[in-house]
Amino acid sequence: MTDIKHPTIDLAKDLIARPSITPLDEGCQDLMIQRLKACGFRIEHIIFEDTVNFWARRGTQAPLICFAGHTDVVPPGDLTQWHTPPFEPTIIDDHLHGRGAADMKGSLAAMVVAVERFVAENPDHQGSISFLITSDEEGPFINGTVRVIDHLEQRQEKITWCIVGEPSSTNHVGDVVKNGRRGSLTGDLTVKGVQGHVAYPHLSENPVHKAAPMLAELSSKSWDDGNQYFPPTSFQIANINAGTGASNVVPGELHVQFNFRFSTQSTSDGLVQRVESLIDSYGLNYDLSWTYNGQPFLTDAGKLLEAVKVAIKKVNGNEPELLTTGGTSDGRFIAPTGAQVIELGPCNATIHKINECVNCTDLIQLTDMYEGILEHLLA
Amino acid sequence: MTDIKHPTIDLAKDLIARPSITPLDEGCQDLMIQRLKACGFRIEHIIFEDTVNFWARRGTQAPLICFAGHTDVVPPGDLTQWHTPPFEPTIIDDHLHGRGAADMKGSLAAMVVAVERFVAENPDHQGSISFLITSDEEGPFINGTVRVIDHLEQRQEKITWCIVGEPSSTNHVGDVVKNGRRGSLTGDLTVKGVQGHVAYPHLSENPVHKAAPMLAELSSKSWDDGNQYFPPTSFQIANINAGTGASNVVPGELHVQFNFRFSTQSTSDGLVQRVESLIDSYGLNYDLSWTYNGQPFLTDAGKLLEAVKVAIKKVNGNEPELLTTGGTSDGRFIAPTGAQVIELGPCNATIHKINECVNCTDLIQLTDMYEGILEHLLA
Ligand SMILES: [Zn+2]
Ligand SMILES: [Zn+2]
Repeated sequence: MTDIKHPTIDLAKDLIARPSITPLDEGCQDLMIQRLKACGFRIEHIIFEDTVNFWARRGTQAPLICFAGHTDVVPPGDLTQWHTPPFEPTIIDDHLHGRGAADMKGSLAAMVVAVERFVAENPDHQGSISFLITSDEEGPFINGTVRVIDHLEQRQEKITWCIVGEPSSTNHVGDVVKNGRRGSLTGDLTVKGVQGHVAYPHLSENPVHKAAPMLAELSSKSWDDGNQYFPPTSFQIANINAGTGASNVVPGELHVQFNFRFSTQSTSDGLVQRVESLIDSYGLNYDLSWTYNGQPFLTDAGKLLEAVKVAIKKVNGNEPELLTTGGTSDGRFIAPTGAQVIELGPCNATIHKINECVNCTDLIQLTDMYEGILEHLLA
Repeated sequence: MTDIKHPTIDLAKDLIARPSITPLDEGCQDLMIQRLKACGFRIEHIIFEDTVNFWARRGTQAPLICFAGHTDVVPPGDLTQWHTPPFEPTIIDDHLHGRGAADMKGSLAAMVVAVERFVAENPDHQGSISFLITSDEEGPFINGTVRVIDHLEQRQEKITWCIVGEPSSTNHVGDVVKNGRRGSLTGDLTVKGVQGHVAYPHLSENPVHKAAPMLAELSSKSWDDGNQYFPPTSFQIANINAGTGASNVVPGELHVQFNFRFSTQSTSDGLVQRVESLIDSYGLNYDLSWTYNGQPFLTDAGKLLEAVKVAIKKVNGNEPELLTTGGTSDGRFIAPTGAQVIELGPCNATIHKINECVNCTDLIQLTDMYEGILEHLLA
């Protein structure tokens, strides 16, 4: 069998056929907007510089459930390695192949179809339903979700529950739900010495030598033990550089860039303070600048998580593992508003890779899960 | 006064006027050869690839005294910063200005003139006098002194005493004599880890973290205490690099290049062994390759040093300090043959710099010193 007829699969194909490499959208959002308009959503285009986003809402009352996602995809890479053209959706052995199939055009299609069905059955549902769709999730995260959330906050429009469609699953849809993410914090450290010739060591001050014991302590330190939902905070030196390239010159400066992925047991301010006092204890002359990439968030109880578990169980019997592992997601921008946020989507084994694909049965079940969540919360 | 008449100054000017930037010679050696031929030297041109060298000898008997030096100079750098054109020798306030004036065309001129005078007075001197002149001392040290010494060793021609004309002095000619040099040894270390995403620390192995305690020990270790003539062996990390540039990638490899300047209290084999066992004690996966740049040498007694001291004292009353500081010199290639080697030349404050210059009085006294040494050893 090389074709499967289902409205989710059809819409996923239409989306994959549009080569929306970050930050391009290539009409993906218009496709979704037409469908949402047709079932009563009010649409707001929110464009920041090169990034198109939209906010769609049906209903004016609280509680507000929001489906969040992105229409952009990562570049396909070496085309010769793809078994099928990345922007020609193709079904092989019950798997839909194409760039974005799993991350996350399949999820977007499932969301739209689930909402259409739910609205058809429940035209006068409680509360409101919304979509927050961006086209820069895979890019620099500057003009996408973070700006739309700013916009909503300014007018006090509050999301109660948010379902992010990122591919959370491991083997079958719903076997894993992400109920939080670690925070991310980057430090750029310059340790200053005095450049000189290796033959005259008393005239120079080697910043690598001065910093080595400090780096040894920094990289072996335990920052916290994590908790039920989070692994321990992890520290990694990503880049280190010193020297002119010549073997007879003592370097004048050492540059070190490091990154924390941190649990809810630590705060970015706390980590900054601990790193700075550790470095200070070595009496180094240094500059240190910090980039705050996102706070950790956690949704460990509440109606949303309950609805998600019930809906998954009903569709395919899975009892999802709750994890906070992996990279960051746009959930980090939504959670600080007070929303409960979970991520539920298909399997992530092939995302960002050559021959990205998604199981068609998973996408159909994901549609039913999203619809089930709506029923549980708003019917 | 803008001109000084003296055969050493005249010859130094003729040499400086030839822009012999490494490995070019531009006729400098021919100028010396004509003069040496005229006073009875047998000349041997020894050319290796792009490098011209010559060996000149007067006499066939032992002992053999050798004047060693180079006709090449380092590039002049930014011409606009020179007060006088670098290849137009100019005397200002008793100083001869020009690239190579101090390092070491002034010394070459003093050697030739000293030998001419000595031979005129002592046509039937004892032993032999020789010149070992190269044009790659400032370059890669591949086809210069090291190859000529090879050549001499193959035919068992042995230098007894060697005077290298490198600028050894600090304030007045003869206030410092270099009676040895430290050895130089370079290590290129690659510590291997496993590259990965910072969000999945359990799937990667950070080589910077693994190596940091080892680098801390390596850079704080004491290798020896030096001795009467040598400062303690010094270890310097010259270059360190790891990382892709991205803040979210754990680097797969760490590269470290370090250099030893070592005293006669250590040997290169001993240092290699100590470094390797230190690294081994940390259980790292690594590659390490070594470059042997030269063994240390020392001439701490003997007839040559005695002759040098007597000659200096007689010319300007200096009692030279014996030092082994500074970079390497071609002496490192000559000393291993068993020769006694010292370095005596003018002040080195301006070498390799813009507006290089040499005191004319120093050059005239240096001529007398070289002549005095010949008298003491061969008259
Ligand atoms: Zn995604
Ligand atoms: Zn030199």
